[in-house]
Amino acid sequence: MSQMIPAERSVRVNLGDRSYDILIGPGLIAEAGREIAARLKGRRVAVITDENVAPRYLETLMASLAQSGIEAVSLVLPAGEKTKSFDCLIPVCDAILGARIERNDAVIALGGGVIGDLTGFAAGIVRRGSRFIQIPTSLLAQVDSSVGGKTGINSPHGKNLIGVFHQPDLVLADTGVLDTLSQREFRAGYAEVAKYGLIDKPEFFHWLEQNWQAVFAGGGARIEAIAVSCQAKADVVAADERENGLRALLNLGHTFGHALEAATEYDSHRLVHGEGVAVGMVLAYEFSARMNLASPDDARRVEAHLRAVGLPTRMADIPGMLPPAERLMEAIAQDKKVKGGKLTFILTRGIGHSFVADDVPASEVLSFLKEKHPQ
Amino acid sequence: MSQMIPAERSVRVNLGDRSYDILIGPGLIAEAGREIAARLKGRRVAVITDENVAPRYLETLMASLAQSGIEAVSLVLPAGEKTKSFDCLIPVCDAILGARIERNDAVIALGGGVIGDLTGFAAGIVRRGSRFIQIPTSLLAQVDSSVGGKTGINSPHGKNLIGVFHQPDLVLADTGVLDTLSQREFRAGYAEVAKYGLIDKPEFFHWLEQNWQAVFAGGGARIEAIAVSCQAKADVVAADERENGLRALLNLGHTFGHALEAATEYDSHRLVHGEGVAVGMVLAYEFSARMNLASPDDARRVEAHLRAVGLPTRMADIPGMLPPAERLMEAIAQDKKVKGGKLTFILTRGIGHSFVADDVPASEVLSFLKEKHPQ
Repeated sequence: MSQMIPAERSVRVNLGDRSYDILIGPGLIAEAGREIAARLKGRRVAVITDENVAPRYLETLMASLAQSGIEAVSLVLPAGEKTKSFDCLIPVCDAILGARIERNDAVIALGGGVIGDLTGFAAGIVRRGSRFIQIPTSLLAQVDSSVGGKTGINSPHGKNLIGVFHQPDLVLADTGVLDTLSQREFRAGYAEVAKYGLIDKPEFFHWLEQNWQAVFAGGGARIEAIAVSCQAKADVVAADERENGLRALLNLGHTFGHALEAATEYDSHRLVHGEGVAVGMVLAYEFSARMNLASPDDARRVEAHLRAVGLPTRMADIPGMLPPAERLMEAIAQDKKVKGGKLTFILTRGIGHSFVADDVPASEVLSFLKEKHPQ
Repeated sequence: MSQMIPAERSVRVNLGDRSYDILIGPGLIAEAGREIAARLKGRRVAVITDENVAPRYLETLMASLAQSGIEAVSLVLPAGEKTKSFDCLIPVCDAILGARIERNDAVIALGGGVIGDLTGFAAGIVRRGSRFIQIPTSLLAQVDSSVGGKTGINSPHGKNLIGVFHQPDLVLADTGVLDTLSQREFRAGYAEVAKYGLIDKPEFFHWLEQNWQAVFAGGGARIEAIAVSCQAKADVVAADERENGLRALLNLGHTFGHALEAATEYDSHRLVHGEGVAVGMVLAYEFSARMNLASPDDARRVEAHLRAVGLPTRMADIPGMLPPAERLMEAIAQDKKVKGGKLTFILTRGIGHSFVADDVPASEVLSFLKEKHPQ
């Protein structure tokens, strides 16, 4: 796998007449104008970004667009999860319409998952669907949220409860920008990379165990890891675009992870999404072992790898107090509807052998949580 | 056509696994619980309606739902076009989520086009798409806006600029409620009924010329006219769901009509949508005659029929001053993008022989408007 690593990779998401390319490599923001001009009929774009990303990359992007004859306006939003709201959606829609973005033009998201989700949603509803280009600037966004067409904002009732499926027309994953991420942010994205191995790519997980330091260092191994991750997500999305079945596998580690995010009140000082997923994946493997589905050795191997890269792997690793197991269980029940005392969960029979289990007894999950998190 | 008129009709909209039924007949609101319970897996609904419709039909609907074991909450919004806004969309989304409407449950729109467009949009974005039932209470909504999946709200930049395509799961067109419409509102909806004849059903237009009084009176002829209209729209939508081509035919009379609505500042005392369409269809037929595409006799026949039912047919019929032809032309150019001095327009070669013309010289349209509306 590590023998042939080119400087740039491209992954195709196959969705019939809505198929699109993900380009992966360093320097793609500076080349964005050329790549977009080659694919877009129109010559106008609206770029949506945030206050953290704009000072670093907006000028490069705007210059590249201008050089290719593309007229661009930009809107810079506050950074952070609160931006995924109607309060920010409304000015984004206004900016797109004000820029007279029409059928052959495009909306560009330049930023992490928050900017991608919000901008994709706006693109999905302006003129009942406008062209959309993702330029993800975090590892999490490059390997997960920018691929697959899930867009949306948060509601007072919960995260991501308002949105649409709206596929991008192009994703430009500039791997150069990842050098400026904090170690903590890079690690959080890495949890999703490891997830693809744990779902159904045992040899990829093995490769990561051997090569994770090279992935963190940058260069070819990083591009390779991102490309394999994007291909894995693209394959699942192509098979089940609207999450009627198989796509649920992408939630490995997420049911426990979401409950922990809720339990820490989405306080990013305590826990960010990828960290919740890391702890959640270890819990999913341990719970599978407890249900006699997988060997405890697999859970230990998962934990050892995630711990090696510096991710939290146990509830005790999360700073501050966690609520009792019963409260965590309530959060899980809110996330996944309980039917007759049974839950749908992503469980595993071993490394790279995960599956959707729709009859997990809620009582077993509660006992397990009490064991893992005694008060 | 008039020989066999049953008491209730049903039209199927064929869209693969998103196909749905339109039921047409008197008393359907009182039977809504039974029809919905027979089709819906879930047992919860959120009903969205407005202050005009609620006092008349909400109680009947809620009683019918309760009788069939369906748990319902309702939200009553202000009536009128201003309700098609983010300001009302946000509380509607909140109400749906607050009612814990999930995958197998549904959102119900009880009202005219404004309520249907707004509620359909909310249903389209809550949980990235929730089940949706239309109970249209105006003739316009029954024959046009409730069928076909176009949903949305207005923006300061223009009408219907924010929305999604989201098909309903069921449409219940209770023809009994039309008895309580004002003559003016019924006539406005009738303009869209006549439109289907003028697009591609010459024999239906002929039937309307003979039977319009029976259609206005109610009973079987009205049900027949609504069923033919819904079938006509269903056929076009099935062939071109997202308006890439053929669906544009449904805009017959709408380019001129929208310009007149804008010119009267959407003041419903002066002009409502269906009236704008009536004047617009006569203008489209007259313009086609001027371009030597159709006979002037056809334009006269269209005008004679619309005038007979009591609709306005000429710009001079609109109360108050209209802006000069140049300003109307600007409104048209904003509605339809002008490319190299050419416009896309729905023109006609005769009654029931309309077509999409994409090379109409803007200069010809302006000369025509100056003739029709001399200062």
